[in-house]
Amino acid sequence: MLGDIPRERAEFLARDYSRGFIRHCGFRAQTVKRGFFQSHVVISDHHRQQDGFVHAGVMATMADHTAGYAAFTTVSDDFQILTIEFKINFLRPAYGDALSCRATVIREGNKIIISESEVFDLRGNEEKLAAKALVTLMAVHRDELNSKGYSTRSQ
Amino acid sequence: MLGDIPRERAEFLARDYSRGFIRHCGFRAQTVKRGFFQSHVVISDHHRQQDGFVHAGVMATMADHTAGYAAFTTVSDDFQILTIEFKINFLRPAYGDALSCRATVIREGNKIIISESEVFDLRGNEEKLAAKALVTLMAVHRDELNSKGYSTRSQ
Amino acid sequence: MLGDIPRERAEFLARDYSRGFIRHCGFRAQTVKRGFFQSHVVISDHHRQQDGFVHAGVMATMADHTAGYAAFTTVSDDFQILTIEFKINFLRPAYGDALSCRATVIREGNKIIISESEVFDLRGNEEKLAAKALVTLMAVHRDELNSKGYSTRSQ
Amino acid sequence: MLGDIPRERAEFLARDYSRGFIRHCGFRAQTVKRGFFQSHVVISDHHRQQDGFVHAGVMATMADHTAGYAAFTTVSDDFQILTIEFKINFLRPAYGDALSCRATVIREGNKIIISESEVFDLRGNEEKLAAKALVTLMAVHRDELNSKGYSTRSQ
Repeated sequence: MLGDIPRERAEFLARDYSRGFIRHCGFRAQTVKRGFFQSHVVISDHHRQQDGFVHAGVMATMADHTAGYAAFTTVSDDFQILTIEFKINFLRPAYGDALSCRATVIREGNKIIISESEVFDLRGNEEKLAAKALVTLMAVHRDELNSKGYSTRSQ
Repeated sequence: MLGDIPRERAEFLARDYSRGFIRHCGFRAQTVKRGFFQSHVVISDHHRQQDGFVHAGVMATMADHTAGYAAFTTVSDDFQILTIEFKINFLRPAYGDALSCRATVIREGNKIIISESEVFDLRGNEEKLAAKALVTLMAVHRDELNSKGYSTRSQ
Repeated sequence: MLGDIPRERAEFLARDYSRGFIRHCGFRAQTVKRGFFQSHVVISDHHRQQDGFVHAGVMATMADHTAGYAAFTTVSDDFQILTIEFKINFLRPAYGDALSCRATVIREGNKIIISESEVFDLRGNEEKLAAKALVTLMAVHRDELNSKGYSTRSQ
Repeated sequence: MLGDIPRERAEFLARDYSRGFIRHCGFRAQTVKRGFFQSHVVISDHHRQQDGFVHAGVMATMADHTAGYAAFTTVSDDFQILTIEFKINFLRPAYGDALSCRATVIREGNKIIISESEVFDLRGNEEKLAAKALVTLMAVHRDELNSKGYSTRSQ
């Protein structure tokens, strides 16, 4: 399932990754392959929670968004990706200098796509798996999305 | 399970709610009762994703954090709350002016606490349920957290 | 969202509920309304696990299947329902004489449907919420299912 | 994390695996290592649902139970394992002659343990990943379990 995609498409997805909330969070794309997407963020104080650890919401957002872009690599460019749901387990607190997220499509589909995301806490020279997510996504044709006629999320 | 908590504790939790990443996201506490927490955010461009909808990560962060503070209302003030995991379903896209999140503890415990969060999209005078989450939390004594000896998330 | 469906359809779904693995588990339909389904099982030794409690798998199966039949009440009779995924929290051990499951559709759709299931442990005259699930389902037209051309689960 | 455990303990866990509901389902242990458990079931008509596919509840039960026994391999024999919650994605319908489930502990702990389960559909000579689950478990000392004093699931 892993492999190359056209360079132009990869560059577009890498740029497109960091918009709106994701830019606000400081996440950046790092590696783009067919069925795979890797992202990165340098941790600042505004990523932390009350105990000084990276907030669960930062890891959840990164896991969701990176999973979505992994799904984008498997569909043609007239499809948008929406998250139907996800579940994330936090395995250990993240307190390092940066996070890395690697998302892999584990089930392709022309409608429903399933990705898996792993969030790593980067601590100097080592990385520790901090969170793991299973993400269910839906590919929606751009026309359908614009017409508000799309089935899952209308109204 | 719902009911009053001391006013001082409620005010502390309401203030404490908006720190680090949550302040960065602009979420604010609104209502605090025993076993219940409600929060609110006015939506700006930096909360949106590539299609103009509120980013799933915004709703997930709000659902997680508000669930955690609902759990805080059920434990004494020497306990911290950590998220073990959560799952969230996105029911329809949110595109309104603000979000409201209501979290309710559905299972109290002196170790494991389960909360449920509902995120509503506020569109003028109406609100629509946009997302629903089930959140598993853990109460950890502050001493245990500081000693790094706590069981779930050490290392 | 709740309401009546044709009596014939309700009776068909009630009968259809208990086939294959579900009959093997002894689950029976109890109440059928539009967007709602309730089921019941009398607990025997073969529903328990090593500690004498009802097995988590019994509650998960009941939560999933009943959620699916709640979804069936919202689509026409030429659609089948498949489970895309579910998540279930076990709130307390079940050790009573019977279980009751109530599933409610919280998001209708002509493709993706979201249901919520609550499993109650019946202990003499009282019932206790033992588990709660969020279930993502997909409506697939019978022709599409038979042709193996359906998108999510082919191959 | 993977490795050997005493042969006696492995044999005990393999036997103990198939009791109550699990025996009723016909699941059997196959391979036991530290942090890993593999199980197997030959599919009969009573494992299927209305469309002839293996019922989601069969795969969910197998994923949960096998994850629990993977957790058992990481704790001493005076601890019991309870499932706090799990989430499972169904990737494609299972219609083969048998299922195989492989569960791996991805986070050890003396209280909270996280396992991951993969369920494979065995079709003649090939196997296909049919479902994937993330499972949150809790180790409870046998004395605590018996005294009903255990924190999460009391009452």
